[in-house]
Amino acid sequence: MTLQVRPRLVTLEGGEGAGKSTVLEALRDALVAAGEEVVCTREPGGTPLAERIRGLLLEPAGAAGHEAPAPETELLLMFAARAQHVRGTIEPALARGAWVISDRFTDASFAYQGAARGGDPRFIAELERNVVGITPGLTLLLDVPVAVGLERARGRGGVDRIESEADEFFESVREAYLGRAQAEPDRIRVVDARQPAGTVATQAVALLRAYREALR
Amino acid sequence: MTLQVRPRLVTLEGGEGAGKSTVLEALRDALVAAGEEVVCTREPGGTPLAERIRGLLLEPAGAAGHEAPAPETELLLMFAARAQHVRGTIEPALARGAWVISDRFTDASFAYQGAARGGDPRFIAELERNVVGITPGLTLLLDVPVAVGLERARGRGGVDRIESEADEFFESVREAYLGRAQAEPDRIRVVDARQPAGTVATQAVALLRAYREALR
Ligand SMILES: Nc1ncnc2c1ncn2[C@@H]1O[C@H](COP(=O)(O)OP(=O)(O)OP(=O)(O)O)[C@@H](O)[C@H]1O
Ligand SMILES: Nc1ncnc2c1ncn2[C@@H]1O[C@H](COP(=O)(O)OP(=O)(O)OP(=O)(O)O)[C@@H](O)[C@H]1O
Ligand SMILES: [Mg+2]
Ligand SMILES: [Mg+2]
Repeated sequence: MTLQVRPRLVTLEGGEGAGKSTVLEALRDALVAAGEEVVCTREPGGTPLAERIRGLLLEPAGAAGHEAPAPETELLLMFAARAQHVRGTIEPALARGAWVISDRFTDASFAYQGAARGGDPRFIAELERNVVGITPGLTLLLDVPVAVGLERARGRGGVDRIESEADEFFESVREAYLGRAQAEPDRIRVVDARQPAGTVATQAVALLRAYREALR
Repeated sequence: MTLQVRPRLVTLEGGEGAGKSTVLEALRDALVAAGEEVVCTREPGGTPLAERIRGLLLEPAGAAGHEAPAPETELLLMFAARAQHVRGTIEPALARGAWVISDRFTDASFAYQGAARGGDPRFIAELERNVVGITPGLTLLLDVPVAVGLERARGRGGVDRIESEADEFFESVREAYLGRAQAEPDRIRVVDARQPAGTVATQAVALLRAYREALR
């Protein structure tokens, strides 16, 4: 089974505090202004069950009343949530012609559970083929130095289990994302997210507009 | 990576109401009487986090406040719980020399998520190799006609999401278990569980004793 490209599935990737949630709103507004139906969603999560799995993944172990997941458990919980998200939310929306913008998708598992946590990328690709089956037409990678992103994210308050990792963890995440963008330059477009939020949003919207024009 | 055999890991398999929980106590008593440390555990579950995953898997969709998992989600949640169970409970117990008796283990995923639910057995084997890595030294398969087992189980009251499947589902489970026993006759020993509970327990204990003698 090879991955099916879903042209109207757009994903946002990047480290903590890169500005994904901020850019997502700008992309939605641009598509809505162009007359499109848009479903905005996020990972891990995106359906009621997948949001329950998100809770198991992100609660800091102390507060959760259960132990932290082992790396393999984290990887499978991520893909369990994603399998549900694809079937329960993403595919139904695409089937009726809507655009779907997801705050993170499978690239994040290669970066976080793969490069940073040590998971085997061939096994992650196997999970992708067997339970995800689809890949976005366009991915915007918001790239920012780790320290800048973490300062932004922590300024927002409330740090989850993954956000409390050490800096090297996030350096591996950043490098893995950039490596994936180099390997798939047509799908993954990098935006320099050190720029002011308005500039980042304008560039992201321009990339989406050009992509949408080229589709027609 | 090939599977490592764990001689002191013993698993109980069989359909609903076959008598696994009943036999488990007899096996534990026999090992304890022989001076062994024994850890009794179950799947899905066996650690606090894995028991939380069990909740997501087994709650009937109506009562749960979230939708039922898709087949792929169910499969990955099972293996997420198993990955955690192996690392958090089974391996630590084996490492200190204890015996571990588990009420269900990986064979159950081949029978339920594979044969009955339509999951690809090669992908399930891939999950087993990548996130479980170990296989029991001895598995006792309690075999009983579906109708007999369901009557016993339902007599116990309280039906979970999987227990409320149709009879053909459980026929596939039974056939898959028997097929696995034929393929691995040294590891998987079949006990006729239509017999009275005391007889089933006696035969199960005799199989375990002979196995333990042969190990020494
Ligand atoms: N380009 C930017 N320059 C400065 N601040 C920004 C920029 N983009 C976003 N911010 C601010 O940084 C914080 C994090 O932004 P945002 O929540 O959009 O990031 P994120 O990538 O979604 O983070 P997370 O991975 O934690 O969800 C917010 O307070 C946001 O207002
Ligand atoms: N051999 C037997 N003959 C008759 N009744 C039995 C036998 N074994 C167990 N029972 C009874 O059947 C019911 C189910 O047994 P038990 O809970 O041990 O099965 P189980 O395989 O663990 O079921 P489940 O898959 O639902 O956990 C119990 O009420 C038990 O007392
Ligand atoms: Mg965000
Ligand atoms: Mg039982």
